[in-house]
Amino acid sequence: MSKVLVHATVSLDGFIADTDGGVEWMNGFPVDPADEAIVARIVEDIGAVVGGANKTQTIEDGEIPYGGVLGVPVFLLTHSTHEPIERNGIIYHFVVEDVAAALATAKGAAGEKWVSVLGGSVSRQCLEKGLVDEIALHVVPILLGAGVSLFAGLSKSMRLERVHTSAFASEVHLRYRVSSTTA
Amino acid sequence: MSKVLVHATVSLDGFIADTDGGVEWMNGFPVDPADEAIVARIVEDIGAVVGGANKTQTIEDGEIPYGGVLGVPVFLLTHSTHEPIERNGIIYHFVVEDVAAALATAKGAAGEKWVSVLGGSVSRQCLEKGLVDEIALHVVPILLGAGVSLFAGLSKSMRLERVHTSAFASEVHLRYRVSSTTA
Repeated sequence: MSKVLVHATVSLDGFIADTDGGVEWMNGFPVDPADEAIVARIVEDIGAVVGGANKTQTIEDGEIPYGGVLGVPVFLLTHSTHEPIERNGIIYHFVVEDVAAALATAKGAAGEKWVSVLGGSVSRQCLEKGLVDEIALHVVPILLGAGVSLFAGLSKSMRLERVHTSAFASEVHLRYRVSSTTA
Repeated sequence: MSKVLVHATVSLDGFIADTDGGVEWMNGFPVDPADEAIVARIVEDIGAVVGGANKTQTIEDGEIPYGGVLGVPVFLLTHSTHEPIERNGIIYHFVVEDVAAALATAKGAAGEKWVSVLGGSVSRQCLEKGLVDEIALHVVPILLGAGVSLFAGLSKSMRLERVHTSAFASEVHLRYRVSSTTA
């Protein structure tokens, strides 16, 4: 049965994008091959992606999860219906405002692999509904001060279980299991 | 010359206290002797403490930095003048609303040791003024959703350099050097 992973690269103060939605701040830090291996191992296990579609850029503009390298179906939450888009062999499906339905469909598509949840609002909704199995973060050594937060606004507290921690060059790789929805 | 360390135990979503100022959520997680050794090594190097005095509890109530075990002078920022308090051999000095002055005095008291900065508001002020050398965090595996944030409201972005990462039981120990005040 497919499991659900909240997957994000964050600043030390918990932002996944700057105030303009940009992620250029992630660049320019030393990277070790072991960092790339950690990310590659997570990505190998992903069978489908769920994300928000209300971004600054659209699929047409080139804002695509994992840079489009994953080759797995992507389910994007929208406010209005939208036909699926095919781009470089990847099908982008659009699901109207029902994160649980999007997750269920994505799980079906992922088979035995993981569903990766991307984006702050979608991740928090999934966490609040108790739909998340694990959280994987890549922490970039920067304080942004402002931007799009991964966790800010989460309406519940929840205990986690630390399952992996590593660091090689700049980033810290963290993985947690969500042990219960109330702390 | 004394250096300045922002030192905090935080939830994964960056809170140092819950909405009532409480820290009970830090308890109940497995601890390894190696976790205690990490904290002990940091604490050994501390020669003075700077913190905010505007807490739910006061010194008189028992809210004292590091549980009062440190035996080093403590400089607390206040809104109005207050005579020093001596408690169990530790002198608590009160400094009116000037974090740079408090830090300078604390550095003098710390000698070759570190000045530990405690609390969200004071830490952010020190970071914004470029007065912080390093940041040490102990990340507890919990999402709180709300509370007193360490970094939220920081008015600048700044690049960090990762200098230490370790994890043994539940907590993740992170240490960063502040490399510049503008990212």
